[in-house]
Amino acid sequence: MKAAVLFKTGEPLRVIDNLVAPTLIRGQIKVDIIYTGLCHSQLMEAKGLRGEDKYLPHLLGHEAVAKVKEIGPQVSKVAIGDIVVLGWIKGEGIDAPGGIYTYNDIKINAGSVTTFSEESIVSENRVVKLPEGMPLQLAILLGCALPTGAGLVLNQLKPKEDTNIAIFGLGGIGLSALITTTLFKPNKLIAVDIEPEKLELAKALGATHCFNANSPTYLEEIKELTSGGCDYTVEAGGTCRSIEAAFEVTKEQGGECIFASHPKEGEKISLEPHAFHRGKKISGSWGGNSYPDSDIPKLVNLYKEHNLPLDKLLSASYSLDDINNALNDLDERKITRALISINPQLDPINNS
Amino acid sequence: MKAAVLFKTGEPLRVIDNLVAPTLIRGQIKVDIIYTGLCHSQLMEAKGLRGEDKYLPHLLGHEAVAKVKEIGPQVSKVAIGDIVVLGWIKGEGIDAPGGIYTYNDIKINAGSVTTFSEESIVSENRVVKLPEGMPLQLAILLGCALPTGAGLVLNQLKPKEDTNIAIFGLGGIGLSALITTTLFKPNKLIAVDIEPEKLELAKALGATHCFNANSPTYLEEIKELTSGGCDYTVEAGGTCRSIEAAFEVTKEQGGECIFASHPKEGEKISLEPHAFHRGKKISGSWGGNSYPDSDIPKLVNLYKEHNLPLDKLLSASYSLDDINNALNDLDERKITRALISINPQLDPINNS
Repeated sequence: MKAAVLFKTGEPLRVIDNLVAPTLIRGQIKVDIIYTGLCHSQLMEAKGLRGEDKYLPHLLGHEAVAKVKEIGPQVSKVAIGDIVVLGWIKGEGIDAPGGIYTYNDIKINAGSVTTFSEESIVSENRVVKLPEGMPLQLAILLGCALPTGAGLVLNQLKPKEDTNIAIFGLGGIGLSALITTTLFKPNKLIAVDIEPEKLELAKALGATHCFNANSPTYLEEIKELTSGGCDYTVEAGGTCRSIEAAFEVTKEQGGECIFASHPKEGEKISLEPHAFHRGKKISGSWGGNSYPDSDIPKLVNLYKEHNLPLDKLLSASYSLDDINNALNDLDERKITRALISINPQLDPINNS
Repeated sequence: MKAAVLFKTGEPLRVIDNLVAPTLIRGQIKVDIIYTGLCHSQLMEAKGLRGEDKYLPHLLGHEAVAKVKEIGPQVSKVAIGDIVVLGWIKGEGIDAPGGIYTYNDIKINAGSVTTFSEESIVSENRVVKLPEGMPLQLAILLGCALPTGAGLVLNQLKPKEDTNIAIFGLGGIGLSALITTTLFKPNKLIAVDIEPEKLELAKALGATHCFNANSPTYLEEIKELTSGGCDYTVEAGGTCRSIEAAFEVTKEQGGECIFASHPKEGEKISLEPHAFHRGKKISGSWGGNSYPDSDIPKLVNLYKEHNLPLDKLLSASYSLDDINNALNDLDERKITRALISINPQLDPINNS
């Protein structure tokens, strides 16, 4: 089967044709990947910005929609033929290791979920049956961007209505968060990015004020706009500087900053200690505190009920052969979330 | 009356003899200071490490025990003759400004509570009547060190029993916190300082393990001792480095770090962002979230019930004339908390 493999950090993925999957062991599931997303995390891994990679060569990808092809011993959560969401956040079921694939006698490593291949072996606890009512292309967002971005709003921030909220970084997570915060009727909903197109998109999705982070005065302007700072800030810009900026415009006396970014290994955030005494709060997020088995159905319901414009998050579509272009476009901030079509013929919508 | 005044940051206080207090206005109380403490904050102010001082020349001091001499208009909380605790944390009552004193036609400024003078004018909301049962010398600790150090344990940390707790910095706040944590029967109670004498004292007060922060390996040793990190860390070492160290040995997945330090204005703490995602928490403390009117009686009860060795916190006694020696000794880390005796003849114990 075809797969895109990271052989060396800092180099493009190699698209190979004859990857061979091993026999399933306890808790593993074999799927055909229909669509996969591409997260900033894979870009960091591919570029070697997550520290030394001990698993080379290896498979990547952690959000996808797939069709179950075979189930390993003791798997009870899904059946052959089920359409499932694949994600990196652990849920119900056996926590199985990834498969060890082979390619011309070379061992190719994989974690408990990977998605950049026609077939994939995944752990039972990284799979959730896709609830009815969401197009499969959008459903890839249920593997990472939505549980993280919407989850950190729904499960962690729980904003009060009529408050001021700022979203830093308008990638898949930031925009998921932004769409979700609109449900809490914010007074001011502020979007921050360095790409004018993304700020335009944020405006279309409900942002009341947009700021380009390249402006030297935008933090002062946000403070002025919000009379001192935002009640809530959500950060998903990917850098320490972006986390620091979000913290800076978080209001004293109870303002909350939650960041989703995983900056380069070894980098640190630099924060004003007195701000903590004056009541600013900051926390991180592990997948928006989401539990896929209960939260994915909730997110699908939210999508249906509020007609959330999730299609706006998927800005471009690529084939598996083209995956390095998708990585480059993401790196150059040209796109929000890439959709990689791997087995689109398995999407019922293409057969109707 | 006699007072110690800061005329210029970076210079010793000037002890002057003929400071004149103004007439009381609404919400002000005139007291005779019996004993005052000396907090690291005054040291920072006197050295000019709290940023530009716009109020020079001015009076300092924010924890004391005093006797009410006169009450201003609308004051209802205390009566003439009451023995009261003075502290910087706001409580019940009118929030009055400080008095503007004069000295040979020079205006001397003062905040809503100051204590380095024979008489002082203080705001009603910085005064609490001292409950029965605590010696007046120890009661100065009720103005700052105890509400902060004990308060951050009782009101913020609320530690579970049988957990691992580390205290960084064994000044008045750190030792108050340490004594208070012993009430929660910690498994390991770890004390950290750079002064061997303070570590000895911590051991006498209940610390199970002591580490000198000058050791290059002590953070690794604490992690090893606690199998990865402490459930709770309390930091009161005064520096950014100390806050960072406490955060570093806080356990992932739910460990909590609370810091009380107010580092030099403009300095920042540098923290590992991924640690937040892995569930470490950090927060500051505004006077241990204490509300003096309800918390001071609680702290006095705690002192009586558990016979807390608070006398160990007051390591040296000085006269007002000697206050610069007290500041120097604190600066050189020779003492934990200084006691300045101003009108000791008003302490009933000295008249019995």
